[in-house]
Amino acid sequence: MASYKAPLRDMQFVLNELVGMERLSGIERFEEVTPDITGGVLEEAARLIEGSVAPLNEPGDRQGCRLEDGDVTTPDGYREAYKLFVEGGWGSLSHSPEYGGQGLPYVLSQALLEMMSSACMAFSLFPLLTNGACDALEVHGDEALRDLYLPRLISGQWSGAMCLTEPQAGSDLALVRTRATPHGDGSYRVNGTKIFITAGEHDLAENIVHFVLARLPDAPPGIKGISMFLVPKYLPDEQGEPGERNAMTCASLEEKMGIHGSPTCVMNYDDAVGYLVGGENRGIQNMFTMMNAARISVGTQGLGAAEMATQNAVAYARERRQGRPAGVRDGETVSIIEHADVRRMLLTMKALTEGGRAMLYDTAVNVDLARHHPEESVRARALDHVELFTPICKAFLTDTGFDLASMGIQVFGGHGFIQEHGMEQIARDSKITCLYEGTNGIQAMDLIGRKLGLRGGRLIECLTGPVRELLEAERDNRDLAFITRPLQAALEELESLTEHVRAGAQSDPNLPGAAAATYLQVCGLVALGNMWARAARAALAAGPDQAFYRGKLAAARFFATHLLPRVHGLAPAVRSGSSVVMELDADAF
Amino acid sequence: MASYKAPLRDMQFVLNELVGMERLSGIERFEEVTPDITGGVLEEAARLIEGSVAPLNEPGDRQGCRLEDGDVTTPDGYREAYKLFVEGGWGSLSHSPEYGGQGLPYVLSQALLEMMSSACMAFSLFPLLTNGACDALEVHGDEALRDLYLPRLISGQWSGAMCLTEPQAGSDLALVRTRATPHGDGSYRVNGTKIFITAGEHDLAENIVHFVLARLPDAPPGIKGISMFLVPKYLPDEQGEPGERNAMTCASLEEKMGIHGSPTCVMNYDDAVGYLVGGENRGIQNMFTMMNAARISVGTQGLGAAEMATQNAVAYARERRQGRPAGVRDGETVSIIEHADVRRMLLTMKALTEGGRAMLYDTAVNVDLARHHPEESVRARALDHVELFTPICKAFLTDTGFDLASMGIQVFGGHGFIQEHGMEQIARDSKITCLYEGTNGIQAMDLIGRKLGLRGGRLIECLTGPVRELLEAERDNRDLAFITRPLQAALEELESLTEHVRAGAQSDPNLPGAAAATYLQVCGLVALGNMWARAARAALAAGPDQAFYRGKLAAARFFATHLLPRVHGLAPAVRSGSSVVMELDADAF
Repeated sequence: MASYKAPLRDMQFVLNELVGMERLSGIERFEEVTPDITGGVLEEAARLIEGSVAPLNEPGDRQGCRLEDGDVTTPDGYREAYKLFVEGGWGSLSHSPEYGGQGLPYVLSQALLEMMSSACMAFSLFPLLTNGACDALEVHGDEALRDLYLPRLISGQWSGAMCLTEPQAGSDLALVRTRATPHGDGSYRVNGTKIFITAGEHDLAENIVHFVLARLPDAPPGIKGISMFLVPKYLPDEQGEPGERNAMTCASLEEKMGIHGSPTCVMNYDDAVGYLVGGENRGIQNMFTMMNAARISVGTQGLGAAEMATQNAVAYARERRQGRPAGVRDGETVSIIEHADVRRMLLTMKALTEGGRAMLYDTAVNVDLARHHPEESVRARALDHVELFTPICKAFLTDTGFDLASMGIQVFGGHGFIQEHGMEQIARDSKITCLYEGTNGIQAMDLIGRKLGLRGGRLIECLTGPVRELLEAERDNRDLAFITRPLQAALEELESLTEHVRAGAQSDPNLPGAAAATYLQVCGLVALGNMWARAARAALAAGPDQAFYRGKLAAARFFATHLLPRVHGLAPAVRSGSSVVMELDADAF
Repeated sequence: MASYKAPLRDMQFVLNELVGMERLSGIERFEEVTPDITGGVLEEAARLIEGSVAPLNEPGDRQGCRLEDGDVTTPDGYREAYKLFVEGGWGSLSHSPEYGGQGLPYVLSQALLEMMSSACMAFSLFPLLTNGACDALEVHGDEALRDLYLPRLISGQWSGAMCLTEPQAGSDLALVRTRATPHGDGSYRVNGTKIFITAGEHDLAENIVHFVLARLPDAPPGIKGISMFLVPKYLPDEQGEPGERNAMTCASLEEKMGIHGSPTCVMNYDDAVGYLVGGENRGIQNMFTMMNAARISVGTQGLGAAEMATQNAVAYARERRQGRPAGVRDGETVSIIEHADVRRMLLTMKALTEGGRAMLYDTAVNVDLARHHPEESVRARALDHVELFTPICKAFLTDTGFDLASMGIQVFGGHGFIQEHGMEQIARDSKITCLYEGTNGIQAMDLIGRKLGLRGGRLIECLTGPVRELLEAERDNRDLAFITRPLQAALEELESLTEHVRAGAQSDPNLPGAAAATYLQVCGLVALGNMWARAARAALAAGPDQAFYRGKLAAARFFATHLLPRVHGLAPAVRSGSSVVMELDADAF
């Protein structure tokens, strides 16, 4: 069975030595957030998750969720673990003290989510969705809705659900048909069917608050005619406690590849009472508030899967004895971690997981800066960073999570295919992260088609600028040349590709789409190259005495030679333009 | 639900226009094998498989196999389909007429296996294992064993099982502990436990013939002390019919990620009667006869998965309507096959699947040449080809199968994660192909550590020689330059890497292992580049009137710009040597 131990040492390295957690010290809200406090919070979280969440993972996968008479039962143990989660205040970690939150940095909530996603991906979805709902409500909800719903959502006493997709409306939300009609008392009546509703119905929380995209009568067609409605499972009574049951039912649960502990619901709304959130026909903008936060979180889930696959593969490779060292014909068998090809896999896993963690936490620190820093210019720069890196974190880290889950199976050999080892579950559970909250193709389009053009095109500087600064600062550092040299080449490749895409997009509307996925991969590799150069610098400064820093240097070297140069193999695809992709008639595929 | 239609048009293109099926016409045994005959056989096979095998796929995955009192029940419908398969003579397609086979080319049996693997991977394993057993017996068995067992195995009336792995002995068969002791009457008694025995016990055939690796008393330690034994489930009586039950039992079935319709057995042998096959302590050599044939077949399974994912993704992309063309804000939604990023995925799938088919069938034609061609020099050259390409077909095509299964899910978006669409099953079923018959890491080591050095190092010429010939012949063909130019660059990269590995391996025993997996990927890409250049030449000759040839040209263009150049991104990993992989102490990962 796969086991989980939170990678606290690396989390603290990333926070304290790599991504500049100390940048938050100038923010009043975070005045008391010292490395000691941070370390304490992470240790407490690890205790809960290793002890109470990780054990749910395998049995929950086998048992799955059950729908009976409209009620959904989650796997055994979920209720108890969720109760501990709520009582410990873990749901409220980074939320506003004004509504009962603890006001800790967002980056800590992502470290917590990473642990939960490693330990039990299915379970991690309950708080993930609730967090997205809180964001939307805090930003767009009116005071009455905020006061009534936010404290209960933030505590986790009530949970949230995002209700976008319909059978005919997936990536294209312009096709949404669910309707909402004003009821004359300020409320609305919602009618329609939504699919793929994660945690739309379950038995963990006292109430479930749906955020539903729907059309008002006479709304303009397409994407501009969509509004967002808050639709609670139980209508709060005058004390704010769950009262009358609302007219919404879970019609069925999907049978899925994985995350069997997470109910994926088909939801019917039959004249359900709803409340408008954030203005008529502004649903898509509101939903993006919810979605963008959720996208970073899904990237965190990908990271969690990568970590889980990596640590279990390393443990197995240390233990499993097969074969002898290269060139040795007789004598003792050795652990497979001694074999070069197994090391190649483990180093790939280490380099992508730890590099991915650094990129993700760096983005999360920028979320904190963008939200809370007193200086306008810092907030603006941080927002640029977050907007650029949201699709990169989402797509690159979830692809990485699935790929490393597959590589983890490979390290186990035939045993990886057997359920009891738990490796195949990581692959089955993590594939969904490449699909929901916008497929990774949609993320790539968001990056190249939207983010690259925002605010005069300055966002890409949040990736390339820090690389240039580092290369400039370390120009004469020969100990670091093993990575600064390939990083320089990779940066130049990225800059040239960016220019190419910008110039070509003017006359060729299909160019961004044809280049998108490959361009995002290049961005991800350069971003991780930046993180690994910084990690190597820190490791060189710390010296080779500690195994931890030797590991960092080895992984940096591996990334620089084996993974970063891949950008040059990807570049021709971006440069080849769109006709090679668009020329073939649809019937001739 | 995923559906299956055999890609007959492409199969015939590959056979008749690409890999030189006509090279077999000089072989007496194949005198009557005209393109008409070939086409007829493939059409008949397609009818059986589309009609009777494909429908088993999804229900069999849900139902799985059941073990009760030592008996294994396969899913509903398997028995009827297997009966049709045997009665139609499909198991005997390429086997020797001397033992009741039809004596058709091996390449046709692989086309048949491809169809079976696409339609139902779990079901395809029954004949696959039997074929491997037939090969081992035909080459290594004595006359009495051959006469008794071969006709029944070839017909499929009896089935075969390969019994290598033990809990402590996976990739490292030197650790095998199962024992065999002479019984004085020419037979042996076998004792031990084997795991991961595909189709070790089931209800499809009248008898199951196990080929078991075991140690004789006083055998030398390690790999040189292993012998192979034929151990039948029922001991044949004097008429050769299944008689007394042998002392072997299926102790349990593994719970797996996929191929639920294929029983993966733990087998106990308790003084089971066995017969030596191919001389004492020659078990490993014998097993490799069986294994090498099986490795090509597993590559074929990977191809089958790739084809299944591709054709279902294309069909869905034509049907599913979401979004508008790039640059168009209003108006009708279009099929997602019109979106550039979806096309990128579909073209990747088409280019790898059809290119992979060409590489595989080319290798299979060489199996026929190596076995049957009257000229010694042709046989020798063909054997070189087969030996070089066996690990490439196995590893590259199974990695491709799994990757494209994942990409197929991606084309379906969230729906790809839902079981009813059948796409996630392709991923779950195909992952095993990357693991069994030697993990893909083992394949890479076989290629770089063994095949590269055989017979003075001439085997690699079977890959590079045809590429050089093509480039030479088409040097002035400007219409083909779009692919010959990048192919030239890729060839030079491969040749340089080969030199690098050869030179370095002398002093650094870990270099091959560190480079192996990446080097194999480069070989696979160059091999497919060769195939696509030939396909493009054929398509240019045929002209642009037919959609089929337009598809070939577009896929060749895509391969040349998007996939082939990746060799240059992979090369630095091969050149970086072994220390970057070996330096880190095992505790510091």
